[in-house]
Amino acid sequence: MTSWMTDPCRFPDTATARSASQRQTTLTKPPGSLGRLEEVAILLASLQGREWPRVDRVHIAVFAGDHGLAADGVSAFPQVVTGEMVRNFATGGAAIAVLASELGATLDVVNLGTVNDPGDIPGVRREIIAPSTANIRHDDAMSDAQLEAALEAGRHSVERAIADGAELYIGGEMGIGNTAVASALACALLGRTPDALTGAGTGLDDAGVARKAAIVAEVLRFHEHALSLPREALRRVGGFEIAALVGAFTAAAQRGLPVLVDGFIASVAALVAVAMQSDVRAWLIFAHRSRERGHDVVLDALHAEPLLDLHMRLGEASGAAVAVPLLRMACALHGSMATFAEAGVSQG
Amino acid sequence: MTSWMTDPCRFPDTATARSASQRQTTLTKPPGSLGRLEEVAILLASLQGREWPRVDRVHIAVFAGDHGLAADGVSAFPQVVTGEMVRNFATGGAAIAVLASELGATLDVVNLGTVNDPGDIPGVRREIIAPSTANIRHDDAMSDAQLEAALEAGRHSVERAIADGAELYIGGEMGIGNTAVASALACALLGRTPDALTGAGTGLDDAGVARKAAIVAEVLRFHEHALSLPREALRRVGGFEIAALVGAFTAAAQRGLPVLVDGFIASVAALVAVAMQSDVRAWLIFAHRSRERGHDVVLDALHAEPLLDLHMRLGEASGAAVAVPLLRMACALHGSMATFAEAGVSQG
Repeated sequence: MTSWMTDPCRFPDTATARSASQRQTTLTKPPGSLGRLEEVAILLASLQGREWPRVDRVHIAVFAGDHGLAADGVSAFPQVVTGEMVRNFATGGAAIAVLASELGATLDVVNLGTVNDPGDIPGVRREIIAPSTANIRHDDAMSDAQLEAALEAGRHSVERAIADGAELYIGGEMGIGNTAVASALACALLGRTPDALTGAGTGLDDAGVARKAAIVAEVLRFHEHALSLPREALRRVGGFEIAALVGAFTAAAQRGLPVLVDGFIASVAALVAVAMQSDVRAWLIFAHRSRERGHDVVLDALHAEPLLDLHMRLGEASGAAVAVPLLRMACALHGSMATFAEAGVSQG
Repeated sequence: MTSWMTDPCRFPDTATARSASQRQTTLTKPPGSLGRLEEVAILLASLQGREWPRVDRVHIAVFAGDHGLAADGVSAFPQVVTGEMVRNFATGGAAIAVLASELGATLDVVNLGTVNDPGDIPGVRREIIAPSTANIRHDDAMSDAQLEAALEAGRHSVERAIADGAELYIGGEMGIGNTAVASALACALLGRTPDALTGAGTGLDDAGVARKAAIVAEVLRFHEHALSLPREALRRVGGFEIAALVGAFTAAAQRGLPVLVDGFIASVAALVAVAMQSDVRAWLIFAHRSRERGHDVVLDALHAEPLLDLHMRLGEASGAAVAVPLLRMACALHGSMATFAEAGVSQG
C-alpha cells in the first residue's frame, strides 16, 4: 500500500472564492454575462489561494505506456505507434508538442515502458517499468510494485511542475489499446456494462467496437471478484500511464496545484483518483467533452461539465491544452477589467 | 439603394480546401481526431486561399449606437451606459478591451451616435449619425440616408482591417436596448413571434422580459406591412450599430476576409446580411452560443453550429474574441504537426 496516496488533499480557499466572486460583481459588465469564464476565474482564485489567479505557467506531462491487451487487436493502430509517438512528442511533431509550444507550456514526456523502445531521446524521461503491462484478458496488468512505480511517476511529475513554478497541471497519455483498458476500468468502478463505455478509440469501425466491447467483457469476467477496490481495479485492469495520471492528480490535490483534465482516459484516471480519495475532485477542472463513447458517462459520474465540446478524441492532453487560453482569458478579464466605479459607468 | 451592398461576394477557394483536407489526413493523429479544429483549419484555408492559414492579425471593430426604444425601459441598464462604455472600450477597462489586448488584436471603436456623447476620445472614431435612432414603437429607426451611413461605417471598418493586413474580422456592438431591437428584427426576418426571440438582455427578470416581448410585439404590429424586405426591415426596426455590422459582414465577404461572428446581436446582423445576399454566409464562422434567448433560433436559421458554449451574454464581440485562440491553435496544428512520413510513425 502506497502511504503517500492516502495523505490528505489541501482544501480550496473559500474566503478567496468569496472575494473573487464579489469582485466579479463590480466589473463593467452585466452580472453573470461572462458565464463560465466568471466561474473559472473564481474557481482558480479559490484553488490558487489568490484573488487574482494566473495560469501563465502550465506544466503538461504526457505519460506513455504499452498494454498487453493490444495484442488482441483492440486498436485501429499497431502497437509500435506508442514508442514512435514518444519520439514525435520530443521532436515537436505531435499535436501536444505543437500546442505546448503555442502555449509556452513545459512539455514533460515520461516513457513508462513501450514494446518498441525508442531508447534515449532528449526531452523524454525514461522511467521504464516494463515494456508493457500484462494482457489483462488473462492476467493482472501489473504487480503491486509496478503500480507503486507508476503512481510515483505521476507524483514526481507534479513535483517537477511545482519546482518549475507551474500554476496549472495537465496530464496526458499515449498508449495503443488504452481506451479499451480505460473502458474496463470505468466499467469496474461504475458497475456499467462494456457497451456503454466502449468506443472507437483511434478509429475502429462498428464491428471493431463490438469486438473490443466483447474483449472488455471478457476482461471484466476474468477479474470480476477483485474489482471492488479502486486501487486493486487499477492494478488489475489499468495501465502504467493511467496509474501515473492517478498518482499525478492525487499529488496535485495534495500539493494544491489545480489540474486541467483532458479527455476519456484522463477522466477515467480522475475517476479512480476520486474513488480512492474524494477530496481530489475539488482540484480538477474538466477541459473538454471527447467524442469517445463513454466519456459522457464518466463525466456524469464526476459531476463534471467540461468547458469545450470540439468533437476531439486524440488524447495526449490535446483537449486540455486547447482549453488553456480560456482559463488565461478568464484570469485576464477578472484581473484587468475596470470596475463600475473606476470607469465611471452607471449600474443597472 | 446602396449599390455596393449588392456587389458580388468572393467565393471560397475549393481547391485549397481540398489540399488542406488532404494534408489533415497525413498528420500524426487518427483521422478526424482533432474534430472541429480540423474543420476550422480547412475552412480558413479555403477562405484565405492558402493551404496554411493564419489568424495572427485580428481586427475587432466595436460599433456603438443608441436606440430610441430604450426610452420605453427595455433594458436593465440606463441609456447613458452606451456612451460611458465607449470611453471604457478606449481606456482598456471593458471586457473586449482586455481580450483584444490579450490577443494582440486591433480594437477599432466606432461611435455612431450616443445620447450621452462621450465627445472626442483617443482611440474612438466619431462617425456620428444621430444621437440615437428614433423610437421604433411609433417611428422608423432611421432614414434611408442614415442607413446608408451606418452600412458604410461597417464597410469602412473592413477596409481599415484589410489595409492593416487583418486575417480575421470580428464585429461587436454596444447599445442599451439593442437586444430588443435585434429581437424585433429577427422576428421580422424569420416570421417568429416575440416570445421565441426576446430574452433577458443585460439582465431583466421574467416580468421585464414579458414587458420587453410585449413592446417588441407592438413594434412588429406598427411596421407589419413593411418588413418583408430585409433592407427595409433593417431601416425600420434596426439600429446604427446593427446596420454597421450588416455592412461590415457584407463588405468582408465581398473582399474575401473571414468573419468570426459574436453572439445574439451580431448573429441577427448576419441574418440580415445573408437575407440580403446569401453568398455572405460562406465567410462567417460562428464563435459562440449565447445565453440570450433567441440565439439558438437565429443560429438554426443560419445553419450555424458555434465553436463555444460558455453561457456568455455580454456582446461587445467578447464571445468572438474568446474563440480566437481556438482558430489560432487549429492553424498551428494544421501548419506545424509532423506527417506520418516525416515522423516515421506507422499508420493504422
